[in-house]
Amino acid sequence: MSKFWSEAIRQLTPYVPGEQPKVSNLIKLNTNENPYPPSPKVAQAIHSFDSERLRLYPDPDASLLKQTLADYLSVKPAQVFVGNGSDEVLAHTFMAFFRQPEPLLMPDISYSFYDVYCNLYGIECRHIPLREDFGIALSDYNLANGGIIFANPNAPTGKVLPLDDIEALLKQNTESVVVVDEAYIDFGGQSASTLVDQYANLLVIQTFSKSRSLAGMRIGFAIGNETLIEGLERVKNSFNSYPLDMLAQVTAIEAIKDDTYFKETTQKVIDTRDWTTSQLASMGFKVVPSGTNFVFASHRYIPAAELMGFLRTHNILVRHFSRPIIDNHLRISIGTDEEMQALIDCLKSHPEVTTL
Amino acid sequence: MSKFWSEAIRQLTPYVPGEQPKVSNLIKLNTNENPYPPSPKVAQAIHSFDSERLRLYPDPDASLLKQTLADYLSVKPAQVFVGNGSDEVLAHTFMAFFRQPEPLLMPDISYSFYDVYCNLYGIECRHIPLREDFGIALSDYNLANGGIIFANPNAPTGKVLPLDDIEALLKQNTESVVVVDEAYIDFGGQSASTLVDQYANLLVIQTFSKSRSLAGMRIGFAIGNETLIEGLERVKNSFNSYPLDMLAQVTAIEAIKDDTYFKETTQKVIDTRDWTTSQLASMGFKVVPSGTNFVFASHRYIPAAELMGFLRTHNILVRHFSRPIIDNHLRISIGTDEEMQALIDCLKSHPEVTTL
Repeated sequence: MSKFWSEAIRQLTPYVPGEQPKVSNLIKLNTNENPYPPSPKVAQAIHSFDSERLRLYPDPDASLLKQTLADYLSVKPAQVFVGNGSDEVLAHTFMAFFRQPEPLLMPDISYSFYDVYCNLYGIECRHIPLREDFGIALSDYNLANGGIIFANPNAPTGKVLPLDDIEALLKQNTESVVVVDEAYIDFGGQSASTLVDQYANLLVIQTFSKSRSLAGMRIGFAIGNETLIEGLERVKNSFNSYPLDMLAQVTAIEAIKDDTYFKETTQKVIDTRDWTTSQLASMGFKVVPSGTNFVFASHRYIPAAELMGFLRTHNILVRHFSRPIIDNHLRISIGTDEEMQALIDCLKSHPEVTTL
Repeated sequence: MSKFWSEAIRQLTPYVPGEQPKVSNLIKLNTNENPYPPSPKVAQAIHSFDSERLRLYPDPDASLLKQTLADYLSVKPAQVFVGNGSDEVLAHTFMAFFRQPEPLLMPDISYSFYDVYCNLYGIECRHIPLREDFGIALSDYNLANGGIIFANPNAPTGKVLPLDDIEALLKQNTESVVVVDEAYIDFGGQSASTLVDQYANLLVIQTFSKSRSLAGMRIGFAIGNETLIEGLERVKNSFNSYPLDMLAQVTAIEAIKDDTYFKETTQKVIDTRDWTTSQLASMGFKVVPSGTNFVFASHRYIPAAELMGFLRTHNILVRHFSRPIIDNHLRISIGTDEEMQALIDCLKSHPEVTTL
């Protein structure tokens, strides 16, 4: 605490990201990274990049990247916003649209950064409880609001919402912005990006960090009506004109263009997830049906915190959240087949685990 | 304008960066970029970078970069903050320290993004007029305030403040944060970073975009007392945990380590600036003494706007600001010797320019 801090800064509770260990020899299943490298075309683009260009500022509008995304998603470039990771896109979204007289609605269990943004920008929020099966019931969101945000699939539960439910919400909620955070959408579920021409208040946010294997490059984007995108551009251009460096723009373009590689690696993750789910089930875990690159699981009688510690002593990192409703669950990222086999073998070696 | 925008967003007047033209064959002297490429070690680091690592998140704390900067500047890593360009560092600075009951003080002519941040975060500011010679007189800042910010050297004037003046201000102004924005310090002037151990309210901000030739990579940093840095970290970790991608961290480290190259290229820019200044003077320009990689000049009788248009028709871009006090000046970035020769030749070809 310092007398020099603005009053509001003293109240902040910053987000705590998953551990990025500095030792090797760990099986890292704690931050939902993709087990496969980015497309070989990304590597090529980096290795053939003319570094002399770096003396110049990048294109502040990332026009070529926006055009590439627009073509890929069948929208106009003016319906695309890009930022330094989807976290930055989310931050600008909260500032641009959610500082309203009515509270923001969001699930009580979701990406925990949402609460941090509310705190940062002084936004009142109202948490809507998940149903007992961890599902989001969008019919519960028919309340006065200054915006609605949820993740689909949701994190850390992995549960998918049908697109029909989202469209039903949009039909009923027309006066505030509805944000669908689709960080994990490529691993299951249907993107709401196909609805942006019909609903002027819909903003869809995606990231290159998961299905595109580019967490290390920090690239996120939003798709929406042109006036929503213009609102985000106003905030961005009042904050940092050039959030995406030249190499981020180049690697993002190459990742989108190599659709074959993207589909192959995504399918491999999905297959491994389904195998992992059945293995966990056979060992007495209850696994929430997942549309993501992680599974959310609790064991019938071994506490999650204990299992996390057990795995850690065997050099396997998974994530555990201490919030009461979910404190008996582990969030396990999907790694390679070999990594998941090692996880399953390790769990089987736990003295209290018995295979059904 | 959209009914979905937060009230405050409607009032924003975003920053307008200098033009980044998409055509080649232009001599680009409008955005103060370095005419020399980054260190060859930067190129090497990019070309030998293992792109498979990009599937993972970068180090959110950029620990190795902070350590490298700390060693270079003889401070502790906990006295270093890094961000996505100095614009992001400045934005977080305004939010962390300047939202105070008293107004922020700044020169009336300075980096125009400062006003944009005030607008974004609802900070009241008070503009202190420059003296007639475009100098900042820090003795004018002895007023009730919630913070003080100025650039040294100042932009777009290029004028340098002596370190003694800054220390005199710090002795008298102890209850609010004083930010010295040193984007151009390596081209002239003495950094205030040597004073951070003595003055707990001093924050010094620098960038890799100018003297390190890395505008394309977006890297900025701040040096200050540990509690100020902690305040910035709180904001950063409530906004985006990973603002610097892996390649930004790697290239920044290589640029700092190659000090010989840095000193050589910086000296070349200084020599070319001094040559350009004398050439301009001989053609009837008044040139403000510059400690930067640009010159700020007005012609005795040809209006600046006209000269800018004339240069543009000859494929030379320079920057002109329409604000009344400075609207008869051009800001001309220092390019290579050949580029500056072309500028001088072009100006000499103007029908109303005569060489003294």
